[in-house]
Amino acid sequence: MTVVSSGEFRFAVAHLDHPHIFGQTSGLIGAGGTLEYAYDEDPQRLDGFCRLHPGARPVRSFDEILDAEDIQLVVSAAVPSERAEIGMRVLRSGKDYFTDKAPVTTLDQLEAVRRCVEETGGKYFVYYAERLHNDAAWHAGELIEEGAVGRVLQVLNLAPHRLAKPTRPRWFFEKRRYGGILTDLGSHQVEQFLAYSGCQSAEINFARVENFGHPDEPQFEDFGELSMTGDTGASFYTRVDWYTPEGLPSWGDGRTFIVGSEGSLELRKTIDPSRQSPASKLYLSNHEGEREIDCLGATGFPFFQRLIVDVLERSESAMTQRHAFLAAELSMLGQAFADLRRS
Amino acid sequence: MTVVSSGEFRFAVAHLDHPHIFGQTSGLIGAGGTLEYAYDEDPQRLDGFCRLHPGARPVRSFDEILDAEDIQLVVSAAVPSERAEIGMRVLRSGKDYFTDKAPVTTLDQLEAVRRCVEETGGKYFVYYAERLHNDAAWHAGELIEEGAVGRVLQVLNLAPHRLAKPTRPRWFFEKRRYGGILTDLGSHQVEQFLAYSGCQSAEINFARVENFGHPDEPQFEDFGELSMTGDTGASFYTRVDWYTPEGLPSWGDGRTFIVGSEGSLELRKTIDPSRQSPASKLYLSNHEGEREIDCLGATGFPFFQRLIVDVLERSESAMTQRHAFLAAELSMLGQAFADLRRS
Repeated sequence: MTVVSSGEFRFAVAHLDHPHIFGQTSGLIGAGGTLEYAYDEDPQRLDGFCRLHPGARPVRSFDEILDAEDIQLVVSAAVPSERAEIGMRVLRSGKDYFTDKAPVTTLDQLEAVRRCVEETGGKYFVYYAERLHNDAAWHAGELIEEGAVGRVLQVLNLAPHRLAKPTRPRWFFEKRRYGGILTDLGSHQVEQFLAYSGCQSAEINFARVENFGHPDEPQFEDFGELSMTGDTGASFYTRVDWYTPEGLPSWGDGRTFIVGSEGSLELRKTIDPSRQSPASKLYLSNHEGEREIDCLGATGFPFFQRLIVDVLERSESAMTQRHAFLAAELSMLGQAFADLRRS
Repeated sequence: MTVVSSGEFRFAVAHLDHPHIFGQTSGLIGAGGTLEYAYDEDPQRLDGFCRLHPGARPVRSFDEILDAEDIQLVVSAAVPSERAEIGMRVLRSGKDYFTDKAPVTTLDQLEAVRRCVEETGGKYFVYYAERLHNDAAWHAGELIEEGAVGRVLQVLNLAPHRLAKPTRPRWFFEKRRYGGILTDLGSHQVEQFLAYSGCQSAEINFARVENFGHPDEPQFEDFGELSMTGDTGASFYTRVDWYTPEGLPSWGDGRTFIVGSEGSLELRKTIDPSRQSPASKLYLSNHEGEREIDCLGATGFPFFQRLIVDVLERSESAMTQRHAFLAAELSMLGQAFADLRRS
């Protein structure tokens, strides 16, 4: 469903380092956004992107995008450690920013970005795709809001990802640049915890990162886990890893288990193993019985519609800025806990 | 499959406080054991048991069983806090003991029991049913041993249980008697971790217990979680709770997720939600592809056959004494961690 007519909301893409840029772009176009410009320092990558989106005009420098007066939002999936600096340039140019997660890679960056948001009044949106661009994950939030499971007591996320090592760029293995597995993959999971539980803050109980199986890439972390307790008392645990088996017909068998005071939810977010892939399914059980809910294609991803409205109306309906930053902060605190433990 | 002919292996049951006694008994009978005597202080409960097992002769005192020269094993599911004392009386009578889990409820009891085993040479078997009497859980161990998932990096157990509050005896809500949710339900989970990972020791990272929803029973714990790291480096996390929704056609949707260096396993131990109940299924994925394995009724529960052999041959094929006690010790250390944190 589109919330604007053609040309009413114009955006550009810049820094195409992570393929998430395709999901960010298609989500906005699906909600009615008009893609005007595209920039990347790698001409081949830029060309590839523009062939998929022929409406986008390739430009030769990022400055051309910052200077373009007809666009309202810059969409980006840069190398993680560079996302903050790019975002602050965008905000200072008077535009809003929509970055791939993780939105920043250090607590110092986060502080600078928070200050910049305050000073400029700009919006620093984050593509926490594992909830925002996943039907089951989105619908779970709706069910919880309706009271289907009562008070949320625990959110538990299993988030295996396929490594596909030969396809990965150098920065993917350099910790200073990707930020650590909890900063990166963990931020998705923490965001889901905060969204489902309604927590406004949380404390780290335990965190651990490991490189179990890749001694040739000593800075790579192929396993992480994180336990927190939220201010409502809700428990959170996640395991993130790069161990999706080669034979699984999905990049990762992502699951969420939510225990509520009045019912439980299971999310099979990408695959229903041995049965269906792709899949996006919910399993709800409460006093009324149990129910399997097929969500694939069912939600239309309202996040993107709301994001556009928020840019135009200066509202906060897609996600509060506080929430987006808190998810990043807590995952980086988890990373710091794990790094300290390991050192 | 039976490993002895009728009368070759004789046992008695005594202290029928937990219905697990039915599973313990049927497992042994299925493996060829002969049930000779039954004792319980509650004549009605004893009568109910003997009606199900007409071959068992009800006796009027526990001493009659301790004195009976024709039995080799006493099987028991007493109030948890009394299991150690009962077990030591059994061992000192020259017989072996097969108790429901948790085998003890305090570290002091564990020390006394370990000493008693050493002094008497008796065997103190524990009914960790969630692995030993579950087809998928048993077969998972076989697959891991065959190398189906490579090195085990993590074992994660979700173990919700139905409270069925009106059916529960008083001791169920008195912490001194049931030992705490990690001591009780947690011991199953730790046992599975040790069995699947091959760890010989582990350290507690974090543990938490809560009474989220039962203020009328202040000593009851309806939620627990426990994180450990084993000596192989393997990670363990479990959540145990009494929040099985009323509408679920199973006492608990028990799951195990095992991440290996070369593949992954999911166990649906009691139900395949919205599809089949009871169920006992395995989902294996590795470089060969993905596979759903229906295990229900497939294993014959070899633990019971081995237990009988171990009693007769004085071997340790069913489970080492060290392993049985270590699972209890680690779950009690987790409970102590959580109790300290809460106090």
